[in-house]
Amino acid sequence: MKYEDAGVNIDRKAAALQAASAKIKSTYTPEVLWGLGAFGGMLEVSRLKTMEQPVLVASTDGVGTKTLLAAQTGRWEGLGFDIVNHCINDLLVQGARPLFFLDYVASARLEAEVLGAVLASLAEACQAAGIPLLGGETAEMPGVYHPGGLDLVGTIVGVVDRPKIVDGSRVEPGDTILALPSSGLHTNGYSLARQVFAGFDLEQPRPELGGASLATALLEPHRSYLEPVSRLLDSGLEVGAMTHITGGGVYENLPRVLPQGLGAEIHRGSWPIPPIFSLIQQLGQVELAEMFRVFNMGLGYLIVMKESSAEQALQTLGVGYRVGRIVAGAGVRVV
Amino acid sequence: MKYEDAGVNIDRKAAALQAASAKIKSTYTPEVLWGLGAFGGMLEVSRLKTMEQPVLVASTDGVGTKTLLAAQTGRWEGLGFDIVNHCINDLLVQGARPLFFLDYVASARLEAEVLGAVLASLAEACQAAGIPLLGGETAEMPGVYHPGGLDLVGTIVGVVDRPKIVDGSRVEPGDTILALPSSGLHTNGYSLARQVFAGFDLEQPRPELGGASLATALLEPHRSYLEPVSRLLDSGLEVGAMTHITGGGVYENLPRVLPQGLGAEIHRGSWPIPPIFSLIQQLGQVELAEMFRVFNMGLGYLIVMKESSAEQALQTLGVGYRVGRIVAGAGVRVV
Repeated sequence: MKYEDAGVNIDRKAAALQAASAKIKSTYTPEVLWGLGAFGGMLEVSRLKTMEQPVLVASTDGVGTKTLLAAQTGRWEGLGFDIVNHCINDLLVQGARPLFFLDYVASARLEAEVLGAVLASLAEACQAAGIPLLGGETAEMPGVYHPGGLDLVGTIVGVVDRPKIVDGSRVEPGDTILALPSSGLHTNGYSLARQVFAGFDLEQPRPELGGASLATALLEPHRSYLEPVSRLLDSGLEVGAMTHITGGGVYENLPRVLPQGLGAEIHRGSWPIPPIFSLIQQLGQVELAEMFRVFNMGLGYLIVMKESSAEQALQTLGVGYRVGRIVAGAGVRVV
Repeated sequence: MKYEDAGVNIDRKAAALQAASAKIKSTYTPEVLWGLGAFGGMLEVSRLKTMEQPVLVASTDGVGTKTLLAAQTGRWEGLGFDIVNHCINDLLVQGARPLFFLDYVASARLEAEVLGAVLASLAEACQAAGIPLLGGETAEMPGVYHPGGLDLVGTIVGVVDRPKIVDGSRVEPGDTILALPSSGLHTNGYSLARQVFAGFDLEQPRPELGGASLATALLEPHRSYLEPVSRLLDSGLEVGAMTHITGGGVYENLPRVLPQGLGAEIHRGSWPIPPIFSLIQQLGQVELAEMFRVFNMGLGYLIVMKESSAEQALQTLGVGYRVGRIVAGAGVRVV
């Protein structure tokens, strides 16, 4: 008996890695000492020594069942941006900037073309963010994964100087909530969306989406807020709290970063809701409260600050809306 | 339509996380600023400022199809040690020590009992290593995962001072290879092992295993070499190279850390091969070369150093064997 008899093909995986290696290496910054092939990726971080109290910030996340839509449509080129940008935004919430990213790709059978496309997409997303794709792992696991199912997981590590952590402690009633627009569903709510659109032709142009197809609208990559939020953090304007709207929507993700006893009012109509959400709501007969609980509804990232700085902040961000305000009493209400 | 209609149960996941939260928090060191519930786990690392040139080292890995054996036998309590210790050993190879760990657990349906047992096991393994379980993610993905299939992925981040990196550059022909014993298969070769033992009663005591069952022998957790290797690194003895024997066995993992043009002879009979390997070989009619290519064969971790320091190193390690030597010419031969 041989290992290959167990249904795992090492050469297939090696070929895909080989094909993507130039793209992966193109993400390396001068700080990268060892990358591809090492037991551990290595990043020289002497720059941390200039910080008062360096704090490492780390987060692991997956793209969820968005991979099933990618498989269904054969469009894998956005998934790397989904997971890299999701992870970057999670770090930003606390004021941290990313240092490096690691990936994990697993499936019942890793097709070289699919793996190559996913790895290339990860590398492009890391390059766009200016961080190295420092390491990763790929695995073939028939018996664990559904045939055709693929999971894409990412881990990001960043850093923030302790005095600069954005921790929500100075947020008060009356503070303004700014929103940076999402590009669509980002990486949440796909189990529901796929059920709503089961049986639909995903490639047909749809007038409700301005002529775009469901595939295009649903697979629109997760947006990164690294550039605008970095500009804001570097501007010296005081930021009270920030949150990334992921699973659980604004109802769950805003309270995570507010002091106990404070809540928020979000004002409907103050920002544009992308048409894909209206389509999901209408075709799936989903209640509005449920829509806000499952989806970001166009609110990709929220920033809480004093009203007196809001105008200048919007100019610094270059994009965004005033969408609500902090109130006394827990809970988020969309009014 | 509601989100729960899509087959995902948020409450089930929350309950398991809640149940494990005390164990997870027990891993927190005073450096942990934010853990459970934060967008990113935070670790204050001012101690890095005392290093000459701090280098972060990071690695992502999965336990592979060992999870299928855990599911089959209902024994989940070792899996956390498997992935945590696998990751720790990967860092050690370059001379780094672990700073923190993050986990990812996904399945078609996360049973609260299983998730609770896996999270508890991860926390115990982190506590044993003295590192915080700083963050993680759990996901339910019917359609991606096979019913009953579960994937467990870990990411570790550690640190080493650049002048202390173990990089293999000073390895020469004639250097001695020491081995630290593995506890069994660790986390590699399970696709083959499961095929060999398909249809066997895994719980029956077996004389070839000294009365232990196949389940016990196969699920024996991956051993951590953190303690002995740290003692060796701190002893001042010069270490030429180190390697962790994972997928690809000694044939693939030793050349990864040797200078080009150097190879190794490994001497059979110089260390004890755990009986589980002989059983696999015999029942699966697996050729010996294939056994060494797929499994660690009892060689958990190898250390290359000058013969003149070997005796003192073995005393410092407290465990281990002289198993071979470095030779001119690429490739590893088991003789």
